[in-house]
Amino acid sequence: MRARLLEATVELLVENGFSGTTTTLVSERAGVSRGAQLHHFPTKNDLVVAAVTHLTERRHEELQAAAARLPTGPQRTRAVIQMLGDHFAGPVFTAALELWVAARTDAALLEAVAPLERVVGRETHAMTVRLLGADESQPGVRELVQATLDLVRGLGLAGTLGDDTPRRRRILDRWAETLDTTLHGGNRK
Amino acid sequence: MRARLLEATVELLVENGFSGTTTTLVSERAGVSRGAQLHHFPTKNDLVVAAVTHLTERRHEELQAAAARLPTGPQRTRAVIQMLGDHFAGPVFTAALELWVAARTDAALLEAVAPLERVVGRETHAMTVRLLGADESQPGVRELVQATLDLVRGLGLAGTLGDDTPRRRRILDRWAETLDTTLHGGNRK
Repeated sequence: MRARLLEATVELLVENGFSGTTTTLVSERAGVSRGAQLHHFPTKNDLVVAAVTHLTERRHEELQAAAARLPTGPQRTRAVIQMLGDHFAGPVFTAALELWVAARTDAALLEAVAPLERVVGRETHAMTVRLLGADESQPGVRELVQATLDLVRGLGLAGTLGDDTPRRRRILDRWAETLDTTLHGGNRK
Repeated sequence: MRARLLEATVELLVENGFSGTTTTLVSERAGVSRGAQLHHFPTKNDLVVAAVTHLTERRHEELQAAAARLPTGPQRTRAVIQMLGDHFAGPVFTAALELWVAARTDAALLEAVAPLERVVGRETHAMTVRLLGADESQPGVRELVQATLDLVRGLGLAGTLGDDTPRRRRILDRWAETLDTTLHGGNRK
């Protein structure tokens, strides 16, 4: 029942946005009584934060599985970048975006979202470093990995207003080249 | 009166978000009667789109003025990147972000926002090319300029959840270095 409520919440965040996601709509979509819902999640904020946490965890597992299938050799960097680009163009990103933007002007929500965001940020960064084989003891490498994640976040935001796939592909091609040259001295190419 | 209404709207978008910006609050803050406001802007959507257009134009003039003061020589790329980073960390970006996210799930708003977004995107791209002295006839250069703008957009989004200035500065330092090496073969350094 808990999982049904959380998945209904994520769907509604993606379809209706934060302000269009009401606890009544969630209980209707999940087919759960209002009483049972209030027992699990007393407030809308409890519900949306738990839903995005849940989705993030599920997606993190999917990312780990996708990472295990990445090629090695010259195509690897591009494949890593594509995996990240897809992640930030999917429903997890959209639901999280709704939460971030709502949290900007809602102190109680911000208090719940900010720690989640820090954990996710740290984990995604560590995974990216590992997948790229980046050596963060080298000056500037940490910042380049961060820039990569900020880039895919920016592309994700651009993508929410329209289908941006061809443009994103060209930019990620170019970024992968730059990363290879800078991180591996072009040795992988 | 029109300008007062538009500036009150932008302030409220930044302070309260899209759903917390009501036409009643705007007329109160601007000190304009409801009748006069409805005469200028019949709907909330008319008001918010006009407000962000107005702010974008004003900010574009400020960017042009800032661009005229940019240094030439080895510090130029870093200064251009800082100017863009600051732009995407300011109130215009925040107000536009509220509009983008609301437009994602509001077809009427999207119809008004999408053309504005295309014009702004094109103008910002052209300005960035000019300021960086980037030669877009070279393969990959166009994508590198686009990546720069998506990067500052991603940093802007990260910044809305907390003060991100020191991290942003280090990333922009690193990116300016990479751009100089790639666009100018390091000749500017």
